[in-house]
Amino acid sequence: MLKHFLVPEKDRVLVSEEKARAGTQAVFEKMGLPADEAASCADVLITSDLRGCESHGISNMLRAYINSYGKADYNPRPEVKTVRESSVTATWDGDRGLGLHLGPRAMELAIEKAREHGMGAVAAKNTAHFGMLAYYVLQAVEQDMIGMAMVSAGGSAALPTFGAEPAFGTQPIAWGAPAAKMPPFVFDIATTQVAANKLSLTRRIGSKIEPGWIANLDGSPIMEAAEVPAQGTYKMLPFGGIRENGGHKGYGFAAIADIMSGILSGNGPGFIADRSYSFFVMAFNIDSFLDVDDFKADMDRLLEKLANTKPAPGHDRVLYAGLPEYEETEIRRKNGIPYHREVVEWFNSMSSELGLGMSMP
Amino acid sequence: MLKHFLVPEKDRVLVSEEKARAGTQAVFEKMGLPADEAASCADVLITSDLRGCESHGISNMLRAYINSYGKADYNPRPEVKTVRESSVTATWDGDRGLGLHLGPRAMELAIEKAREHGMGAVAAKNTAHFGMLAYYVLQAVEQDMIGMAMVSAGGSAALPTFGAEPAFGTQPIAWGAPAAKMPPFVFDIATTQVAANKLSLTRRIGSKIEPGWIANLDGSPIMEAAEVPAQGTYKMLPFGGIRENGGHKGYGFAAIADIMSGILSGNGPGFIADRSYSFFVMAFNIDSFLDVDDFKADMDRLLEKLANTKPAPGHDRVLYAGLPEYEETEIRRKNGIPYHREVVEWFNSMSSELGLGMSMP
Repeated sequence: MLKHFLVPEKDRVLVSEEKARAGTQAVFEKMGLPADEAASCADVLITSDLRGCESHGISNMLRAYINSYGKADYNPRPEVKTVRESSVTATWDGDRGLGLHLGPRAMELAIEKAREHGMGAVAAKNTAHFGMLAYYVLQAVEQDMIGMAMVSAGGSAALPTFGAEPAFGTQPIAWGAPAAKMPPFVFDIATTQVAANKLSLTRRIGSKIEPGWIANLDGSPIMEAAEVPAQGTYKMLPFGGIRENGGHKGYGFAAIADIMSGILSGNGPGFIADRSYSFFVMAFNIDSFLDVDDFKADMDRLLEKLANTKPAPGHDRVLYAGLPEYEETEIRRKNGIPYHREVVEWFNSMSSELGLGMSMP
Repeated sequence: MLKHFLVPEKDRVLVSEEKARAGTQAVFEKMGLPADEAASCADVLITSDLRGCESHGISNMLRAYINSYGKADYNPRPEVKTVRESSVTATWDGDRGLGLHLGPRAMELAIEKAREHGMGAVAAKNTAHFGMLAYYVLQAVEQDMIGMAMVSAGGSAALPTFGAEPAFGTQPIAWGAPAAKMPPFVFDIATTQVAANKLSLTRRIGSKIEPGWIANLDGSPIMEAAEVPAQGTYKMLPFGGIRENGGHKGYGFAAIADIMSGILSGNGPGFIADRSYSFFVMAFNIDSFLDVDDFKADMDRLLEKLANTKPAPGHDRVLYAGLPEYEETEIRRKNGIPYHREVVEWFNSMSSELGLGMSMP
């Protein structure tokens, strides 16, 4: 993760995985979810925090979810309807269930179809925030499959290249593949230059944005390092930033996520569906293409090469997607998750308000 | 297309589609391909030139192909072997056939499987240059399907983020989806900042590279506008460029193309497979997820919104992937394809050398 998003040492409070998990599960139960589903939702958030992806963990998301359940925006007991189904595909109506509530089951179905037929995909409409996409592709990776996940998350945040009006949300895309000895390849990105949540983190931490990260309201890119402008005074650029830097490629991937999740699920493109999110998850059964052992051996060759690449001047090492997150998980499992003290304070006050009987650290 | 890649007006020679197509087909026949397969290969190249994607048309590729057939690097009569197959997947050994020779048939098989079961994918190893990926996703789009295509094209061109040694070729990715009234969404990119062929074009045209497009041999990015350095004195950066600009996202997509094409086909990652290319094509049958008419109506809504977005200062209009290529095709079908006069001279001298009895314009 860029240093811009790290909690400064003086503000860190270490909380054990167990405590964070139990507290989070208690919140979801309080919101009305059955215990096993609350545990599953907590697993998505805590896995984010363990992987060092705090933008999608408790810090930003849990309070947002509490707020939305409180306003009855999310349905804690959704009855998912299958709109259409084939041997390898399914379209779901998520009945306003939270994305990370429905996502693990959707990927399970995709995996089941892939195991039987070679590939499986589930598109879901009428759902909400999906959490960290890496979670779902890891479900496939653990079953010796390649996993893919995308989300259409509204349409009021990100500009198309050359545009002054937004068309997309952060429209994230994730992809994962297993290896034998090396930590798996797990790629999970926003198709904007920076995830919305990471701008909140930057603001909380007090660091600056980089040139080409965001644009003014008239669509002109902000090309100097600056404080994060106030919410509502900027728009996001697609990743790559300006056209000359490949921003049109980020723009294209944003459209792909909008098409595969929003349009293919029947939810509509993000700019129309607005706060009704949609997702697309898919599993590729490696064994349908070639021997899993051969695949994993070649993955090791690629990932070992990448991790052992001679670094360019000014850099210590070369990483690949999933490697630092794997290493961070090992550290945080042992030492605890470093939350910002403001987050811990919020959790404790919320816990006492809701009568959860939980406290951190 | 960036102005960097346009043939300057004074150097343009307009050649009719028919003449370019006939000449290209004659070349492939001369190389030993059966007439129908030569016509199919010519269609891939001419479609590139019509779409304004001359980096992947005759100008750069046809002479490269002639050279490789001449050295027996490519097999003009490949016997494709099915290595593994399921209802929705197939793995092919391409028997050293040119990628754009095998690609149309591979996508046809993917489409057939998708029509019957919902999705279809073909991974092919032991093949060569694949031409413009947009061609294959358009095959799916014309059948009311979503198309996807990727290639693993060696491993000696592009650096991983922070790295001083290359691990990937240009590893391109394409995605396409149909609309009702609007030209289809057709996204086709190199996962490097710039396609290798576009650097050749830049050199031929005499324009400059932009900051962050490529790196020195030690991995340090070249951060000023400059002449294209001599072949062998630079390395490619993943799209996005440097880390702060999203280059790690381009790097991740390069790895995905390498995994889906190189590793899943059994060809091996690009850095090992080197000059043996591999590809992955896939079709999603829209009707398996929702009504095709509903899908296309939503596509129109999205694409109309994008094309009608108010532009940012300094820009005339907002585009989407596939729109300018569609417009360019209309123009070039009518007026002819503007080749660089050097290309026309080359074609005529090659034609007389090979006894094709063809000439341009």
